[in-house]
Amino acid sequence: MEYSVIRNLIVEIPQVPGNFAKVVSVIGSELADLGDIETLKIGTHSTIRDISVQFEDEAHIERVVEKISQLGGGIMIHAVSDDVLKAHEGGKIHMGSRREIRSLGDLRRVYTPGVANVCKAIEKDPEQAHYFTGIGNTVAIVTDGTAILGLGDIGPVAGMPVMEGKAALFDQFVGISGVPILLDTSDPDQVVETIKHIHKGYGGILLEDIGSPHCFEIEDRLKAELDVPVMHDDQHGTAVVTLAAILSACRTAGVDLAKAKVGQIGLGAAGLAICRMLLAYGVEEVYGSDLSQDARDRLRKSGGTVVSTVDEIMENSDIVVATTGVQGLIKKEQVREGQIILALSNPHPEIRPDEALEAGAAFAADGRLVNNVLGFPGIFRGALNARAKEITYPMLIAAAQAIVDSTREGDLVPHPLDPNVHVAVTEAVERAANTGLAQ
Amino acid sequence: MEYSVIRNLIVEIPQVPGNFAKVVSVIGSELADLGDIETLKIGTHSTIRDISVQFEDEAHIERVVEKISQLGGGIMIHAVSDDVLKAHEGGKIHMGSRREIRSLGDLRRVYTPGVANVCKAIEKDPEQAHYFTGIGNTVAIVTDGTAILGLGDIGPVAGMPVMEGKAALFDQFVGISGVPILLDTSDPDQVVETIKHIHKGYGGILLEDIGSPHCFEIEDRLKAELDVPVMHDDQHGTAVVTLAAILSACRTAGVDLAKAKVGQIGLGAAGLAICRMLLAYGVEEVYGSDLSQDARDRLRKSGGTVVSTVDEIMENSDIVVATTGVQGLIKKEQVREGQIILALSNPHPEIRPDEALEAGAAFAADGRLVNNVLGFPGIFRGALNARAKEITYPMLIAAAQAIVDSTREGDLVPHPLDPNVHVAVTEAVERAANTGLAQ
Repeated sequence: MEYSVIRNLIVEIPQVPGNFAKVVSVIGSELADLGDIETLKIGTHSTIRDISVQFEDEAHIERVVEKISQLGGGIMIHAVSDDVLKAHEGGKIHMGSRREIRSLGDLRRVYTPGVANVCKAIEKDPEQAHYFTGIGNTVAIVTDGTAILGLGDIGPVAGMPVMEGKAALFDQFVGISGVPILLDTSDPDQVVETIKHIHKGYGGILLEDIGSPHCFEIEDRLKAELDVPVMHDDQHGTAVVTLAAILSACRTAGVDLAKAKVGQIGLGAAGLAICRMLLAYGVEEVYGSDLSQDARDRLRKSGGTVVSTVDEIMENSDIVVATTGVQGLIKKEQVREGQIILALSNPHPEIRPDEALEAGAAFAADGRLVNNVLGFPGIFRGALNARAKEITYPMLIAAAQAIVDSTREGDLVPHPLDPNVHVAVTEAVERAANTGLAQ
Repeated sequence: MEYSVIRNLIVEIPQVPGNFAKVVSVIGSELADLGDIETLKIGTHSTIRDISVQFEDEAHIERVVEKISQLGGGIMIHAVSDDVLKAHEGGKIHMGSRREIRSLGDLRRVYTPGVANVCKAIEKDPEQAHYFTGIGNTVAIVTDGTAILGLGDIGPVAGMPVMEGKAALFDQFVGISGVPILLDTSDPDQVVETIKHIHKGYGGILLEDIGSPHCFEIEDRLKAELDVPVMHDDQHGTAVVTLAAILSACRTAGVDLAKAKVGQIGLGAAGLAICRMLLAYGVEEVYGSDLSQDARDRLRKSGGTVVSTVDEIMENSDIVVATTGVQGLIKKEQVREGQIILALSNPHPEIRPDEALEAGAAFAADGRLVNNVLGFPGIFRGALNARAKEITYPMLIAAAQAIVDSTREGDLVPHPLDPNVHVAVTEAVERAANTGLAQ
């Protein structure tokens, strides 16, 4: 028998003698291979265990799961976990105490009565909260679950693994305490009111996977009304990393971006933000196309030029960026010799990089390369360090430039786990924020 | 020179050669004693250092702080920290990644593209969120800052050190991820709306230091509208620990609580909750007094008996609990022989335990002993373990009984750092929740 797949069965087994043996018997009699057994929770009446089992194939898994489920007596399989799911068990983040409380003295320092002095110090001078609480190092990661990855409107709870992922990356790359906020509403009035009512606990607000077009109104209003940095990552984080990739490609190709013609196919959250970023960077000719009239109007208002067809974009642009979600939208025969093409839709790009290069593109990349991980941690770290009240285009452009400067010759962007990128982005953003303040 | 006080000066020093020397010179010339120097932040233009200095007395501290502040050139003292403040520097909690992301493989598992599978699994079966996110292990610690400790309405930001303290205790005692939520509103409609809009991210809601009477409406409405456990600690956490202290005292004095006359002086959040808890426990005669008509009405509605004066309570009660905030309200001559007296106002009790005992009380304690730390961690751990949808009186009474059972002969309550208490409370609450479900 060849075992090609490993799964972890999360099984709740009532505490009745012989129950556990029944479960193990099924695994044995079905010739599945039992591995590690971990106790996840010992409850009053039942125990939940994580049982690692090797199977032959998917059908084999189903057979065993079915048989265990039929055992009855309260034995229940709660989940069947693979190595990706396993990495998520119990969640990916935890709010921990920064100092161990070992003695009554410690308790009296960090809790009553000592803590009263700290409260009074902050009451007298609110500025002290920056030193004696974690507020200035904490960023709320806010989603309404309407545009989770490429999966669409799956709700905030199903989107939680993404939010926890962002928080894990915040912690690991730049030491920020990232706190997911799951909104059960997408109504801009309710979202803005809710975030306003809780914003005092955070040094910054990262909006995440909020759909278009309500993301625009939500971000604009929060930026206007709050005095902490607010950034919608799907817009500006993506735009920063895209700008960096474009600048790297231009550097290698000897193209001056400011004088290049750039065409953006798709003017959703990311597409529009990329256009605005390019305009802020100083690109004179930014063309965009989208099926939606509202989206085209937004580009026009932002200073870009609207064109009608993908053909027009492909014909006239030195650099093409696509964020449509439509697989294979760009045909090989539309590619012009020497074009730079970033087809960013995940998981299926508008044109595969190998096809684009074959058709004559000078550079081509897809969305796997343009990873937001390169941007948001350092952008927020820099903004928090500078105690910036907002995230401005000069700060975002500085972030993009720092990513370019951290990119090895020949690459479009750096490796996302290269810690130097995050330090470089942090410093650049902090410097830009301070320069902005000084002006 | 005798150095009796240590302080940490948090000083921002612009990066100009000689600047740091100027600061150190002031400390030296004023004959203060320089200790450790820790670099907190290296910014683009300036560095923030934590300089430990020993001083003679408070006047000496002021002199040195004044002189450093007068140096100019952007040199600024941001804070002067003692050992309590020092324990709070940078905040007491941090949201950390539970697993280190070391490789691109790790990144692809916990972030895109792997995370998409986890999102889809939860979308298909929302129950899976319990296993693959931290939601079921996370409790929001919500305050509006209107009743922070005994300090009153100092605002949510000044109250943050208390919320961080609760989160630190959650982590250390029962492994719960506690997330402070600072509300900028006390309006019950707005508070309820806000918490409803964000509640999907939490397995439970701990209401904390919310003033009376709006705390009653807020808790009632949230309990009615949410399907996760909601508890106002200042009410029910305090009531649990108070009930435990009363039960311990009764056990030693050989009194049957159910048949005792209990008088409650002060019917604010804690006082009313204590009355309700005693009634739920089965105490037949619960008397209460308060200056506010509304408070007296609330007791009457809950089934207690209202009396007019403190004198009446003192004359007729076997057990007296006071939560008025009025120092010295109970006179020695009012104490009856053999009474059990808990004068809980912090930091100044209605009567000092030594005075009460002198006057003939059988048992006496003040608020330092009746520490909420004994209750809330295990109450929430038990509720989360049982996946309870609410926290009921049977669960709270089970918690109190578990505290009593963990109390050593002769003590009123256990040591708050005794880990066994939290395990015992957890198990008792979980069992009571499961029994409730089974009924």
